[in-house]
Amino acid sequence: MLNKVADIVRGLSADTVEQAGSGHPGMAIGCADIGAALYGEIMNYDPTQPNWPNRDRFILSAGHGSVWLYSFLHLSGYDVSLEDLKRFRQLHSKTPGHPEYGHTSGVETTTGPLGQGFANAVGMAISEKMLAERYNTKEYEIIDHYTYTLLGDGCMMEGVTSEAASLAGHLGLDKLIAIYDSNDISIGGNVDITFTESVPDRFKAYDWHVIDEVDGHDIASIKEAIAEAKEVTDKPTLIIANTHIAYGAPTKQDSNSAHGAPLGKEELTGLKENFGLPTDKEFYVSNEVREFFATRQEKLQKIRQDWEDRFTKWAKANPELKTQWDQAHNLELPNDLERVVADIELDTPLATRKASGSILRKIADQVPYLVGGSADLAPSNKTYLDKYEEIQKESFSGRNFRFGVREHAMGAIANGISLHGGVRPFTATFLVFSDYMRPAIRMAALMKQPSIYVFTHDSIYIGEDGPTHQPVEHVESLRLIPNLEVIRPADEEETKAAWLEAMKRQDGPTALILTRQNLPHLKKDKKINMDKGGYVVQEGNDPQVVLMASGSEVSLAVEVAEKLDVETRVVSIPDRNKFIAQGQDYIKEVLGEDTFRVALEAGVGQGWYQLLGDKHHLVSVEDFGASGSGEKVGKYFGFVAEEITEQIINRL
Amino acid sequence: MLNKVADIVRGLSADTVEQAGSGHPGMAIGCADIGAALYGEIMNYDPTQPNWPNRDRFILSAGHGSVWLYSFLHLSGYDVSLEDLKRFRQLHSKTPGHPEYGHTSGVETTTGPLGQGFANAVGMAISEKMLAERYNTKEYEIIDHYTYTLLGDGCMMEGVTSEAASLAGHLGLDKLIAIYDSNDISIGGNVDITFTESVPDRFKAYDWHVIDEVDGHDIASIKEAIAEAKEVTDKPTLIIANTHIAYGAPTKQDSNSAHGAPLGKEELTGLKENFGLPTDKEFYVSNEVREFFATRQEKLQKIRQDWEDRFTKWAKANPELKTQWDQAHNLELPNDLERVVADIELDTPLATRKASGSILRKIADQVPYLVGGSADLAPSNKTYLDKYEEIQKESFSGRNFRFGVREHAMGAIANGISLHGGVRPFTATFLVFSDYMRPAIRMAALMKQPSIYVFTHDSIYIGEDGPTHQPVEHVESLRLIPNLEVIRPADEEETKAAWLEAMKRQDGPTALILTRQNLPHLKKDKKINMDKGGYVVQEGNDPQVVLMASGSEVSLAVEVAEKLDVETRVVSIPDRNKFIAQGQDYIKEVLGEDTFRVALEAGVGQGWYQLLGDKHHLVSVEDFGASGSGEKVGKYFGFVAEEITEQIINRL
Repeated sequence: MLNKVADIVRGLSADTVEQAGSGHPGMAIGCADIGAALYGEIMNYDPTQPNWPNRDRFILSAGHGSVWLYSFLHLSGYDVSLEDLKRFRQLHSKTPGHPEYGHTSGVETTTGPLGQGFANAVGMAISEKMLAERYNTKEYEIIDHYTYTLLGDGCMMEGVTSEAASLAGHLGLDKLIAIYDSNDISIGGNVDITFTESVPDRFKAYDWHVIDEVDGHDIASIKEAIAEAKEVTDKPTLIIANTHIAYGAPTKQDSNSAHGAPLGKEELTGLKENFGLPTDKEFYVSNEVREFFATRQEKLQKIRQDWEDRFTKWAKANPELKTQWDQAHNLELPNDLERVVADIELDTPLATRKASGSILRKIADQVPYLVGGSADLAPSNKTYLDKYEEIQKESFSGRNFRFGVREHAMGAIANGISLHGGVRPFTATFLVFSDYMRPAIRMAALMKQPSIYVFTHDSIYIGEDGPTHQPVEHVESLRLIPNLEVIRPADEEETKAAWLEAMKRQDGPTALILTRQNLPHLKKDKKINMDKGGYVVQEGNDPQVVLMASGSEVSLAVEVAEKLDVETRVVSIPDRNKFIAQGQDYIKEVLGEDTFRVALEAGVGQGWYQLLGDKHHLVSVEDFGASGSGEKVGKYFGFVAEEITEQIINRL
Repeated sequence: MLNKVADIVRGLSADTVEQAGSGHPGMAIGCADIGAALYGEIMNYDPTQPNWPNRDRFILSAGHGSVWLYSFLHLSGYDVSLEDLKRFRQLHSKTPGHPEYGHTSGVETTTGPLGQGFANAVGMAISEKMLAERYNTKEYEIIDHYTYTLLGDGCMMEGVTSEAASLAGHLGLDKLIAIYDSNDISIGGNVDITFTESVPDRFKAYDWHVIDEVDGHDIASIKEAIAEAKEVTDKPTLIIANTHIAYGAPTKQDSNSAHGAPLGKEELTGLKENFGLPTDKEFYVSNEVREFFATRQEKLQKIRQDWEDRFTKWAKANPELKTQWDQAHNLELPNDLERVVADIELDTPLATRKASGSILRKIADQVPYLVGGSADLAPSNKTYLDKYEEIQKESFSGRNFRFGVREHAMGAIANGISLHGGVRPFTATFLVFSDYMRPAIRMAALMKQPSIYVFTHDSIYIGEDGPTHQPVEHVESLRLIPNLEVIRPADEEETKAAWLEAMKRQDGPTALILTRQNLPHLKKDKKINMDKGGYVVQEGNDPQVVLMASGSEVSLAVEVAEKLDVETRVVSIPDRNKFIAQGQDYIKEVLGEDTFRVALEAGVGQGWYQLLGDKHHLVSVEDFGASGSGEKVGKYFGFVAEEITEQIINRL
């Protein structure tokens, strides 16, 4: 029967791509047997309850094979109809070119940028272990699921996959089962033109269990391999499935021409003939296959219902755990979090990274589902939660991650952790290395995941480590990513407000941009207004000049204001995008109407022009930094109150 | 004797960090023996001719150990004095916190961002093979050198290292010798908290020759391992040297406290005592060691002089090759390149990626030292040079690279190729995946390397592949990187000008931003002015409105201008940073003084505000894209001439 399922999917996928006029039929046809085994027999899921917490997770890391996924979601009973398949790759359809989380029921993560889906799967497998250790009791096992991912040669070549695989092996994620669609074909041609390493040996080196040379077109072999994987209880498993791209297409099988374009009429007919599918029908699903999935759905619903019963009993027996579970799954915050944070006593002057460390530790006490760590920079990022254990192999009740020097995987794993539900992740590195994880930050923003990024060492002021470690363009370039909230606090109080803002945010990621160096406490005429992104720090009396800045430059602006003998206002704009989003009324209220506007930023200043207007002065860093003491480097780039004061006077 | 060299370096490095008050003594002390073997005996170099083309290359991938490198450069006779060491990490000294290419004699590449130095080394080893195949004759071998790199645990964990190692194994780079400083310590603590994979097995899987368990403090063993590596002629070699961080420090040996901070007075004295160094002297170099390096320098100069003689004979015997050699090393362009490019016949409408493909192929015919390739997207990026062979194992005379789906390594390898000299690289991928290689782009810009990036599929107009593949923030975020020239041409003629500009540029990288979709040929009132970044396409008669745009939006601007019933000028700004750099006079000449300024960009528009002034209108994409036909997605985001025309009329 599963063979028939696979054949139907081959026809369905090929028809779908043909009708759309674009897409990737080769992988969908080649992996149909693997999908039949997973969706037709192995995986636990309930299409009527796609968010059932204990479902098996499936991630199509090779996201370009979306039509494969949509075909199986359709057959399995998810909310993807034949009509949806017919609208494949059309604007606002449920079947976009790559699978999009939050857009299509049954899609666990957005994939397409290669390797990241695999790393998401690692994150989900970590979440499973964390939740199991936190919530399962002797009597009731409420979390116990597998995470499956399907990846191709492209994913295998990406560095993020290597990073994530190494960490998965280190953590012994035995309930992670990765299936490698080894079809030897990528866009450029045969993979042996560039990819001749031994994948099995590489994964064994990462401490994975590897099942090699599985016939990816033999469903019994696939099932057997997955059964073997489940027997392994101390390692993740990689199943290497040998497949043929566009399996069964008369001339395009094993050809890169089948990778990313429709087969064409003739090939399509030939394919259908080869599998005994009616050649005169499009989008054909046999009654037999329909009935098979109807029966399966009943069985799956029963499994899910049994779980619900177990969960109810568990909840009754463990009310405290149940409360925690709900809070974690809804990302609830304690009512008194603001007060608790306000009460944290902090010395000044203080580096905002240090303020952040103290605040984070306090918040972590209040929010038990917050977990995270750094890419080997915890002592510098101040992100280690001393009171809590580490997450390590066979010990997932802790709260501290050791991501290693693997920034890209860190970001993508955090996305997987967040997508799984039940845990909220934060990650950390030097701001300059946000570039290494930028592709994952983008995906968090696109998927509206509330990851928190702690980026410390935020400017040329880090000093001696020099231009490779001094971010210059990074704050501005993070501000460009849609739906990423970027907050650069100016002192320890603003750092408190920034953390609260990050914690409250549920519909997207937040980057906290923090200093290495000490900053003085700012005396403020008005209350910090993080909700509006910026606010008046020092009023000035009918000011002629307005100085605006974020982060460490706000205290410099205060210095400049003191030196200027015209009435000057100082404005702190920790979250510029949010400030701009308030609209012209608020902007004018804060910046004044006919003021001479000055912006200070120890980085590329491009984005400030939107607030500067015609009469303005911008002090920024438009070149790479230099190695030297932070103070001297700052001076070299003109961040000196006297100098800036003089410039302003000259311009007035 | 080499043991004495190592001991001197331990004292010198520790003193240097101590005096600076910051730095990384642990690695410098732990790897002193490895350095003594390399600089004291194994490597060929000539400190008086640091750019000698056939020198062995050494790359300190673990760039934080800069003091180690500076100590050896000092002893070897490079232009690094004791005074320079005493100014370690001070502004404008020759000894910045991380090694900086172009700043300190003997530093082959800028390192610090982990993993990239290793990938640079792979690029240099590739260059060596390319030059050897191109220039060596039966009689004269003028290129025949090794590339050495030293990397630590941090480098080992980074994905870029995995990508580059896989490719190095594939290409069989036998003259690449990587030494892994395996000291088990990183910033976070013992590496076994996060890094437990089998590095030797992993590298064997990449088809490397691995020499494991070498005692990194036994110089004889190190030399033996390197000799073994040289015997292997079909694979790169990884030597795993077991070392102790801060070897010989009384209490800080094997501790992460020695990684990134001075040892402190007491430890320093203890260290010196342990190695029989005078404890009352700082920056001590024994006469014996001085004399050793003086003798060695004579010997090395002799080797270099022999090479010069050989080179002169080779040049005499092969005048044509010598001309090519000079052109390649000076990045000379043929005089008639502009004419040749101008004469390329191109159909319109045409996607700028396709125009680029035709232009690139023509330029490649004219510029034999231009080589490159794509990260598995050659058919889409249009970067394959059909007339030339591929670069593959044992065949490096070709010109086409197959980088595989390894964007980050591609960028960093290109940097290595470029730094080596003698070849100029271009690389290619979809614009959205520029994020995957962004850290390497930054390094190219910082090191002023003339890499050329072909980034195609440049906006929401790519259509069906959807938001994961539609760049939105990417053009703007590339424009933020200092010294990166970003050119987004508007039609096939501008694409010619863009390629010429990229080829002429020698002091930094250039990103060409190209469309997937067809663009019409633009009728131009004025000549394309790529030198100034922007120019008038359609004059208008005393215009009231100025429409400015880059790339595909310029033809949309022309459409809008046709619909507006006020006098309108259309300006194309393919290189916005360069346009702005012309200053206000030119900007006002092109944009007019009291015009209503409108900018169109199918991406985040933040950077246009600098040109918009008070009266303005911006049409941009401030959110992620959507899957659908390019035309429909464009419409959905408001890129419709009628709509924009109406908006402008309403604003006027």
